Amino acid sequence: MKHICILGSTGSIGTSTLSIIERYPERFAVASLVAGRNLDLAFAQCRRWRPLLVSMATEQLAGELAARLQAAGLAAIEVVYGSAGTVRAATLSQVDFVVSAIVGLAGLEATYAAVAAGKPVGLANKEAMVAAGEILTRLARRDNVPLLPIDSEHNAIHQCMRGGSAQEVCRIWLTASGGPFRQLPAEQFQHVTVEQALRHPTWVMGRRVTIDSATLLNKGLEIIEACRLFDLPPSAVKVTVHPQSAVHSLVEFVDGSILAQLSVTDMRLPILYAMSFPERVPSELTFDLAALGQLSFEPPDFARFPCLRLAYEAAEAGGAACIALNAADEIAVGAFLEGTIPFTGIPRTIEAVLEVTPSTHPETIQEVLQLDEEARRVARNVVSGFSPVLR
Amino acid sequence: MKHICILGSTGSIGTSTLSIIERYPERFAVASLVAGRNLDLAFAQCRRWRPLLVSMATEQLAGELAARLQAAGLAAIEVVYGSAGTVRAATLSQVDFVVSAIVGLAGLEATYAAVAAGKPVGLANKEAMVAAGEILTRLARRDNVPLLPIDSEHNAIHQCMRGGSAQEVCRIWLTASGGPFRQLPAEQFQHVTVEQALRHPTWVMGRRVTIDSATLLNKGLEIIEACRLFDLPPSAVKVTVHPQSAVHSLVEFVDGSILAQLSVTDMRLPILYAMSFPERVPSELTFDLAALGQLSFEPPDFARFPCLRLAYEAAEAGGAACIALNAADEIAVGAFLEGTIPFTGIPRTIEAVLEVTPSTHPETIQEVLQLDEEARRVARNVVSGFSPVLR
Repeated sequence: MKHICILGSTGSIGTSTLSIIERYPERFAVASLVAGRNLDLAFAQCRRWRPLLVSMATEQLAGELAARLQAAGLAAIEVVYGSAGTVRAATLSQVDFVVSAIVGLAGLEATYAAVAAGKPVGLANKEAMVAAGEILTRLARRDNVPLLPIDSEHNAIHQCMRGGSAQEVCRIWLTASGGPFRQLPAEQFQHVTVEQALRHPTWVMGRRVTIDSATLLNKGLEIIEACRLFDLPPSAVKVTVHPQSAVHSLVEFVDGSILAQLSVTDMRLPILYAMSFPERVPSELTFDLAALGQLSFEPPDFARFPCLRLAYEAAEAGGAACIALNAADEIAVGAFLEGTIPFTGIPRTIEAVLEVTPSTHPETIQEVLQLDEEARRVARNVVSGFSPVLR
Repeated sequence: MKHICILGSTGSIGTSTLSIIERYPERFAVASLVAGRNLDLAFAQCRRWRPLLVSMATEQLAGELAARLQAAGLAAIEVVYGSAGTVRAATLSQVDFVVSAIVGLAGLEATYAAVAAGKPVGLANKEAMVAAGEILTRLARRDNVPLLPIDSEHNAIHQCMRGGSAQEVCRIWLTASGGPFRQLPAEQFQHVTVEQALRHPTWVMGRRVTIDSATLLNKGLEIIEACRLFDLPPSAVKVTVHPQSAVHSLVEFVDGSILAQLSVTDMRLPILYAMSFPERVPSELTFDLAALGQLSFEPPDFARFPCLRLAYEAAEAGGAACIALNAADEIAVGAFLEGTIPFTGIPRTIEAVLEVTPSTHPETIQEVLQLDEEARRVARNVVSGFSPVLR
């Protein structure tokens, strides 16, 4: 029986994780939950799963949840809050596996603490690996703590890499759906509306990641994540546009063989894989190969999708550049969604922020968070400087 | 340094194996060669590779080769012949790895002897695994002797199976190019000419295997081979028609993940993989994923390709039925190439032979060879009974 801590239990990955735990009660149990701000769902999850401990975003929310739990006869569930609460949830001695699924950098400290405590971690948080991947993977490698990717692409890479040793991998290929603007002519990118950008062809996701899929910055973050997770130089991480999203990624070995992973586009599969590794557990998430039809693969267009180039540059520079790429993108996407910068303003903002980012390599999570704050400040300045004419 | 024995050194797989040995002199050396009837090539291979021992098909050929070697100052190379000679080549104490690439059942006894002597074997001989797969794999499993498939499909399966344990595999998918008649309407099969059938879309191969690719009996033999090699029931071995021959096969795991192997269509790749396993060795046989374009997968048509159904029936019955399937096909293909039966006479001959095949399970290679002879006799009778009207 594996006792699971879910950092981000009320989000999409968190609820999918709970559905996996529900499906395999003989294998998994809930140890602790970090539920953020959704009080009603946090309460419902506590009632259903009886965790040892639950952490909320603030002291006030924690107080309200504690009162409701008390009234429901569930006073045994400890309620904590804030980043110290998140760290406690992730490092409880009863926890066997941590699912790190808090969006943004809020879960970073707890993810680091989990690795430091020797807990295997399932990583569903791209931003954390982009901003602090060097620090996290260095610690995990030193202490031999498993980091299992939950992102569908990196999970696919993890599976394919079992076909050889790490030294026998010469290159990996991340598949990209290409987003809604795969075939959009270059001159139309400046006129892209929020509504157009929020329409993703194959995955249903949150707003920032949907916009990131449209700019391919999302793939850019995955390039950096892959470099860190699999200890590869950026030149060994390629992107191939595969609109059908059936192949989730590929690994090319030194002998010339390529292994690819295919499955349904359902996040429960990589979650189950990560939580069960090194075992594979029977599931109903079967893929109908007989109905597969046509698959296509084509090179990405760096001219129409400058975010890809920016990501490679940040991956090459490492450290603060990766933090700045992620932070600047989040600010720029927010501004685009608010209508204050055009779609093409997203890569322009990122590029402007990268240009003034120092080439430092943080050694601690605190330094990462400081660099992130600084990059956001710079990005807000850049965004506010967009002239109304360009909108 | 691995010392290699090549059973069938003058054939296509044999010469490809020698080109691999030539490319990696620091890894591989030739220990012994079984060269059959091609005296000139056998002599040239002896001069180039200086094996300890070479075996020819007959005493006369062995005598001629010995004389030529003597004259060339190569009298140290021992020359033997016949099936005893083949067995000696495969079981020399200096041999570290045996490539079994003699077409038909002629290499069966030596392949068995190699496994019995504990030599890892690279299997490039489909017929041997179809006729005696149960016997060979039972021995190999008991003594823990590696059997490495060199057939591109089974080699792909072997690679993909590294993504989980054998118990975690729920199904495998053999890809089939579909052959030249993939889109031929059913009513035109009876009029197929030898010339049409010998035109294969993606692989250049020998005459029988090319015809077998046109009837899909080749895929049928591979279904049986896969059942034996990977210890799977026929129901767990599926076929998917994939005309581009880029994906060489796929493995479906119990959790719903599928791993696929892609590479260039070059037999040197599976040969190198088998000889190097568990290592992967850098090669120039790289696959251009960026230029991959469209891939398609569709279910095979059992109505137009009855050989597939016959193969599943033989796989289910096992033992003598598999031997009869292979033997009857060889006779029927020979008759088709000679123009004495129509293309559709191939499955009809096989079906007629299977109908009168006893449900025995041979325990020894001798019994296998006897059942093979008997099936050939029956097949010749069936073929001779084809009325001239049907031709």
